[in-house]
Amino acid sequence: MDVDYVISYRFANTGKATAIARFEKLVEALASVGLQTEARNGDRHSVLLFVRVASDEHLFGEVYRSRVRDWIHGVRAAAPPKETREALEAEPLYEAERLRIIYQLITNPVSEGGAGITPKEGEWESVESIFALHDHAYNKDWIKKWTSSYFLKTEDLDDIRNRLGEKIAFYFAFTQSYFTFLIFPAAFGATAWLLLGHFSPIYGIINALWCTVFTEWWKHQEVDLAVRWGVRGVSNIEHRKKDFRHEKLITDPVTGEKVGMFPGTKRLQRQLLQVPFALGAAIMLGGLIATCFGIEVFISEVYDGPLKWLLVFIPTGILTTVMPILTGILTKFATQLTQYENYETHGTYEKALTQKIFVLNFITSYLGIFLTAFVYVPFGNIIVPYLDVFSLTVRPFAENEKQLQGAKPGWTINPDRLRKQVIYFTVTAQIVNLGMELVVPYLKRRGFSKYKEMQSERAAKNGGVPPSPATNDAPEDAAFLKRVRQEAELDVYDVTTDLREMVLQFGYLSLFSVVWPLTAVSFLVNDWVELRADAIKICVEMQRPTPWRADTIGPWLDSLGFLTWMGSLTTSALVYLFSNDGLGPDGHPSSIKCWALLLSMMLSEHAFFLVRYGVEMAISKLDSPGLQKERRERFLIRKQYFEENLSQLQKMPKMSAGAGGSITRESLEEDARRGSMNESTPETRFWSRQQGWKETVAVGKELIERGEMEKSPERKKEL
Amino acid sequence: MDVDYVISYRFANTGKATAIARFEKLVEALASVGLQTEARNGDRHSVLLFVRVASDEHLFGEVYRSRVRDWIHGVRAAAPPKETREALEAEPLYEAERLRIIYQLITNPVSEGGAGITPKEGEWESVESIFALHDHAYNKDWIKKWTSSYFLKTEDLDDIRNRLGEKIAFYFAFTQSYFTFLIFPAAFGATAWLLLGHFSPIYGIINALWCTVFTEWWKHQEVDLAVRWGVRGVSNIEHRKKDFRHEKLITDPVTGEKVGMFPGTKRLQRQLLQVPFALGAAIMLGGLIATCFGIEVFISEVYDGPLKWLLVFIPTGILTTVMPILTGILTKFATQLTQYENYETHGTYEKALTQKIFVLNFITSYLGIFLTAFVYVPFGNIIVPYLDVFSLTVRPFAENEKQLQGAKPGWTINPDRLRKQVIYFTVTAQIVNLGMELVVPYLKRRGFSKYKEMQSERAAKNGGVPPSPATNDAPEDAAFLKRVRQEAELDVYDVTTDLREMVLQFGYLSLFSVVWPLTAVSFLVNDWVELRADAIKICVEMQRPTPWRADTIGPWLDSLGFLTWMGSLTTSALVYLFSNDGLGPDGHPSSIKCWALLLSMMLSEHAFFLVRYGVEMAISKLDSPGLQKERRERFLIRKQYFEENLSQLQKMPKMSAGAGGSITRESLEEDARRGSMNESTPETRFWSRQQGWKETVAVGKELIERGEMEKSPERKKEL
Repeated sequence: MDVDYVISYRFANTGKATAIARFEKLVEALASVGLQTEARNGDRHSVLLFVRVASDEHLFGEVYRSRVRDWIHGVRAAAPPKETREALEAEPLYEAERLRIIYQLITNPVSEGGAGITPKEGEWESVESIFALHDHAYNKDWIKKWTSSYFLKTEDLDDIRNRLGEKIAFYFAFTQSYFTFLIFPAAFGATAWLLLGHFSPIYGIINALWCTVFTEWWKHQEVDLAVRWGVRGVSNIEHRKKDFRHEKLITDPVTGEKVGMFPGTKRLQRQLLQVPFALGAAIMLGGLIATCFGIEVFISEVYDGPLKWLLVFIPTGILTTVMPILTGILTKFATQLTQYENYETHGTYEKALTQKIFVLNFITSYLGIFLTAFVYVPFGNIIVPYLDVFSLTVRPFAENEKQLQGAKPGWTINPDRLRKQVIYFTVTAQIVNLGMELVVPYLKRRGFSKYKEMQSERAAKNGGVPPSPATNDAPEDAAFLKRVRQEAELDVYDVTTDLREMVLQFGYLSLFSVVWPLTAVSFLVNDWVELRADAIKICVEMQRPTPWRADTIGPWLDSLGFLTWMGSLTTSALVYLFSNDGLGPDGHPSSIKCWALLLSMMLSEHAFFLVRYGVEMAISKLDSPGLQKERRERFLIRKQYFEENLSQLQKMPKMSAGAGGSITRESLEEDARRGSMNESTPETRFWSRQQGWKETVAVGKELIERGEMEKSPERKKEL
Repeated sequence: MDVDYVISYRFANTGKATAIARFEKLVEALASVGLQTEARNGDRHSVLLFVRVASDEHLFGEVYRSRVRDWIHGVRAAAPPKETREALEAEPLYEAERLRIIYQLITNPVSEGGAGITPKEGEWESVESIFALHDHAYNKDWIKKWTSSYFLKTEDLDDIRNRLGEKIAFYFAFTQSYFTFLIFPAAFGATAWLLLGHFSPIYGIINALWCTVFTEWWKHQEVDLAVRWGVRGVSNIEHRKKDFRHEKLITDPVTGEKVGMFPGTKRLQRQLLQVPFALGAAIMLGGLIATCFGIEVFISEVYDGPLKWLLVFIPTGILTTVMPILTGILTKFATQLTQYENYETHGTYEKALTQKIFVLNFITSYLGIFLTAFVYVPFGNIIVPYLDVFSLTVRPFAENEKQLQGAKPGWTINPDRLRKQVIYFTVTAQIVNLGMELVVPYLKRRGFSKYKEMQSERAAKNGGVPPSPATNDAPEDAAFLKRVRQEAELDVYDVTTDLREMVLQFGYLSLFSVVWPLTAVSFLVNDWVELRADAIKICVEMQRPTPWRADTIGPWLDSLGFLTWMGSLTTSALVYLFSNDGLGPDGHPSSIKCWALLLSMMLSEHAFFLVRYGVEMAISKLDSPGLQKERRERFLIRKQYFEENLSQLQKMPKMSAGAGGSITRESLEEDARRGSMNESTPETRFWSRQQGWKETVAVGKELIERGEMEKSPERKKEL
């Protein structure tokens, strides 16, 4: 229908007069930046406002402005041609660029030439969402193509970039790279599983090397893709946050304008709150995990009463109910904390938030395995007897006290627990996760539409008119409007959630895969499905995402590096601890040589630093089409400038050869005398002795000849 | 005398005809790029060729070309104005820039617009040196000013930059920063020495922190200075090495030109030779140091015969004679190895060479102390009895076998040895070094002139004419020419030697100052003198250096970082080993808890990583005049471009407000019917329902009103 964006305007919570006044303001603001609008009835208590650019001229201006800004920030090598239509013919808009520019036109502040509409904020709080419409034909093709091919080509990623923008394309590119890279550890892991067994140092080394190569290679690949997509450097374009609150106004020494400023020391003080936050989160989440862990060990290994098969699931039950709630609270708290830190730009805000979220995820994802590997296995025999405290949880079910008593004599730790746990996290949890991602939104959607159906039925029973919005639709638009109303209800896609999932998955591989070398095989299968499932999710269960630009996967890259480094420590520690044929310590810490453990970790870490440096070096030497393209562009521009600027320089006249006549002592003296007669300075006299280069040569010749004579008085005599 | 450069042309080793032909070619080449020349008699068998730029126009062209190149490489924010004379008036040449441009005019290849003269290479092997003349008046002022002030101001550094170029200015700026930073550890060290004693963990932590802050701060300062001097980014301008040998010609995918190429894999293979080289150097130098160390321990602690006071100096004697020879050979070898690695640009070559030199220097400077601290002190009682092998060295002097026998019963290691050694390296060696730097060249110069005097005396005795070159001088030039002949004989100043000295000094502070906290006091005094001595050295004992540009102290920065990191390891190890009131282990390794040593090192190292990250963050937040200046320049240019480009964009017409008449269901339907009668598409019909934004508002208003009615049927009933 040629609609660029749909704005869902919901007036349920505002008074009628305000709602109308604001709606008028909204439409006027849109019109003022050259957007054409059509209002249609939305779902209950909302108006759907269809927006499109009134004419190409309006859009071209914006595109040109955006491209000039890019060029000035170094994203584009050359300034776009001044004739706008020409510029667009030379480099046509792709869909994502068009949608991004229109979105910015709607949301940018008025001072920057936009309409200044900020959904859900301030005076625009009734603006529920601004979304583009799905292209169903394309979506169908996309999913069909992907589900019928094993590997994605760069062209497939280009396609995503053209449709959904670089930020989402980067997620798919990353996952695809990761998937491709997984083939090696999957093959090697399977071999190692068959031939080397668990806790093989060889597997550990190869795996750590692979993780390092992958992380470094992705950094390289990222640059290549950014150049390919013409977005290299966009992360340097700062987008100021609208809710940044300044402390005082200062005159910017750079621009000379009055700008709001928030003192860095004050922000640092606020940032220091992260330390208690991280500690608090670690204690809360860690306490929960440790408690559940303790209960689970107690029930599975100490308790000996009835219903054991069922009671074992108590801790899992606690975890699956309490954990999401706790994580949710902590995430919200992290968001508030980050907002309180009051960042000026979106980039810094995102980074600070991601760091906090990563800490939370690190604890929830890996702490359980850490406890098993580095507490239960080495110290099990010391700790387990104290787990009696958890007997409370199963006391009602026990038949006698004996069933609740601590570890029996001769009890030993269960060395298989670690492996089972790793398998749980790398197989079961991944599958559950994938299922949740697809099924939960579907159920939510179904439930919601069921609820609405029931509501309208009730309304019909009450005798009111069925408030279906469709009744007023023009018949020929009905199908279209129905679709739009459906899309308006969908969730907004957040690519960082998916990215985080991949990074955390990579963490299992880097940190613990030495426990169970088949990890990579499981991930390989999972990620093939994941890539397709994400595509389906975007097409079916989410509103069409606003296409943002990006030139990197952002702060998650640091997380990757951190996990790789951490992997060098855990892998070596695990290999050392379980070096006795994978049996590991027997729960008595006395059997562990502390210095050997520390030494192996230290060696491994430093080997890692060295290898990382080497890999970095080697990869930085690699050339890639993207880098070549960039260099070529810059070269051509440089050449052009050089030619433009230097062609005007006049050719320098050559030095005169001088009289070239025979120069004798006398003539030189003559020159000198002549020079000294004029009122010349010593400098002019010095420089006027030899006129033209031929005279210099002649004098030099004489000097050399004289020198040669002195050099060989003997030879001369011989002659 | 208004001379820009002097070329010393020595024809001692070439035949007369060749010498003359080449001289002619030289003068012609110089003339072809607009340089005026004057030949004068040089010292025995040399011609002094005085060079100056023939006219300002010739120079301006070159300056303009250089500035355009800078701009294209991002060193300058804006393109220089096209009118050259205007550009030079807006931004006058400073002396170093002038000299650099003329030097490049002389030495650049013909293809790049230079005369292509390469001293001592190929057909120009007779060109002994190309040097500018000292400005004696300025030099005198400079030394006078420096020797009479305690601190150097940034303006003093600016002055050096204007005279001697940025590369040398960076050395002085670095040393000055280092000197200023030393005040704190000197004061704190003195306090610690009085109150905390040796091996204080508090001193160790503060010192490591200081080293980190200094290293990171210098990185920041470097950028600031580079911006101040307008050279930020010059290290990105690649200077191709002339002796780069390509393997094959490929078509450059970027420029489309045929270029020589040397495969990276082959270079990597050659670079791998560094490993045996480093090992070999370590074994040779390490062997020498260990042997001398063993002999010294044997003589001073085991030997008990006559002449002990004298024999103790044997190892020092060996070291001071053999070490420089060995280092010289290894340095030469390192240079050849680096040449063999066949780098394309000067930058990569310098970096590779510096790394090798640093390895050599690291061994020669620190290995002795490492041996004492980590071999002699912990393992002394085990090793010393085996030192009998060194009895050979003093056997001739011993009176009986007993004097040569191994450690007596009850012998213990000398715990003071480590401190004495550190004091030797940080005080005695520094003073000796400083003396050598000033005295050796002086003696060399005196000896050389003495030799020449004797030679001419002999020549006079033999009845030949005294071959004094001065005899043919014009009387008024005589004094000037005498001075030039003297300067032609001076050494060429190499700033990296001085820089290396400072970095190695920093190493003692970072690695070992916990042994003797007064280290920084000694360095503070030493560096005050060093800064002045270097200035004198440049003015008196060296030819005026060619002013090169630089925006960093280059690869030495990495060395600083490495030494700081290493310091976190050695300091913690030393503090742990000597934690028993500074007595340290008693030579029996059994008293060392290996795990505690490793743990303290590991903790210290990771604390260092954390602190470094924090300091990096904090310093990156600092603003500086240089960075501000850069941002201001870029902002102004950006603003200008924006205004230039966007002013041409036509103002967008606002959306028409539309008819604005009353819109009823009927009128809308009417519109729709009218639309459908034409052969319009669904799209045009969809978008033509509401003409102008006022109509949209009206429709929206109606929808909202209807919605509000539905929302509150109860309320309505109540009314």
